[in-house]
Amino acid sequence: MKSKTKYLEFKTNEKIEIVNITQQVETVVSESEIKEGLCLVNSMHITASVFINDEESGLKEDYKKWLEELAPYEVKRYKHNLTGEDNAHAHLKRQIMGREVVVAVTEGRLDLGTWEQIFYGEFDGQRRKRVLVKIMGE
Amino acid sequence: MKSKTKYLEFKTNEKIEIVNITQQVETVVSESEIKEGLCLVNSMHITASVFINDEESGLKEDYKKWLEELAPYEVKRYKHNLTGEDNAHAHLKRQIMGREVVVAVTEGRLDLGTWEQIFYGEFDGQRRKRVLVKIMGE
Amino acid sequence: MKSKTKYLEFKTNEKIEIVNITQQVETVVSESEIKEGLCLVNSMHITASVFINDEESGLKEDYKKWLEELAPYEVKRYKHNLTGEDNAHAHLKRQIMGREVVVAVTEGRLDLGTWEQIFYGEFDGQRRKRVLVKIMGE
Repeated sequence: MKSKTKYLEFKTNEKIEIVNITQQVETVVSESEIKEGLCLVNSMHITASVFINDEESGLKEDYKKWLEELAPYEVKRYKHNLTGEDNAHAHLKRQIMGREVVVAVTEGRLDLGTWEQIFYGEFDGQRRKRVLVKIMGE
Repeated sequence: MKSKTKYLEFKTNEKIEIVNITQQVETVVSESEIKEGLCLVNSMHITASVFINDEESGLKEDYKKWLEELAPYEVKRYKHNLTGEDNAHAHLKRQIMGREVVVAVTEGRLDLGTWEQIFYGEFDGQRRKRVLVKIMGE
Repeated sequence: MKSKTKYLEFKTNEKIEIVNITQQVETVVSESEIKEGLCLVNSMHITASVFINDEESGLKEDYKKWLEELAPYEVKRYKHNLTGEDNAHAHLKRQIMGREVVVAVTEGRLDLGTWEQIFYGEFDGQRRKRVLVKIMGE
């Protein structure tokens, strides 16, 4: 059994931003030299997501608008913000989008469907954050 | 370490449909001859889900109604549909239900709780789609 | 390859409760003696979640309130409850929060971000339920 661990760093320009990280994850898979296995990609922060969906700019806007409807920013709405934070909304948004994805590695590559792309979803950005990539296999 | 990869195919009759795939996944586990490991089951499409819940027809109706409330079909609501698609709603519904499940394999079987069943959740169906099953272990 | 499987048991005092289980999972990782691998933690019940977020009491209250807005208890709202149950809402709440997490194990420890804590989210409690922990690696 082989394994490979790598930490990717992100600092987004916007508070809320969706970043395509497929190529960066694919690079870690190549470096690992693992041919058959599983690849975990997770946000290490609780106000951000890693998820798989479509690389289409309109859809990214739809996600932002929709998440704002389901979990509005409104500072006074949340008890968590009594701690001095204003990011309770980001904790909720991230639960809808998910913390992590697990992707199959087959014949040395991410085994993704035609339109599947891996995204880092930032909901409380403009500061340094990390994503963990761990591959296990042979 | 052993691994086994299989692609299941689905073409649902309805646009939105929830299909129990537990037996098909269990069959792949048997074929793999893996006794202890992890089994990844994921949709390879971004308008469909794999999730675990209850085999109960009323609940399936509840899910459909609830998802329609949270992410309505309404074509004009979404920028993604300006590309000529009408399936933006399906991209959102799938995020709530999730892309994948990881299930333990113990003593050669899916290690599921009493009521846990694995479902393929289709939100933009009536065309051929794939689900990936990958098992890793020994 | 090594693996370790353990079943944790919970019986919450409240119907809806969020329990920090990070230490219990960390203990299973220690017992496994696995240094590099993946750790699956999942609810074995379909009205409960395992998720990762922040240990902050206000945020826990925010989650409960928010989930009640998105998937209200209201018994008559759901077809599932025609079976005699009153827990349809709990099946929906759990889909938002997720069934499972997969956490990297690195140098013999859960490889969590600074604020990441693992929680058992119970939405239909006051009875005995199980969480599965399975670690695979070397």
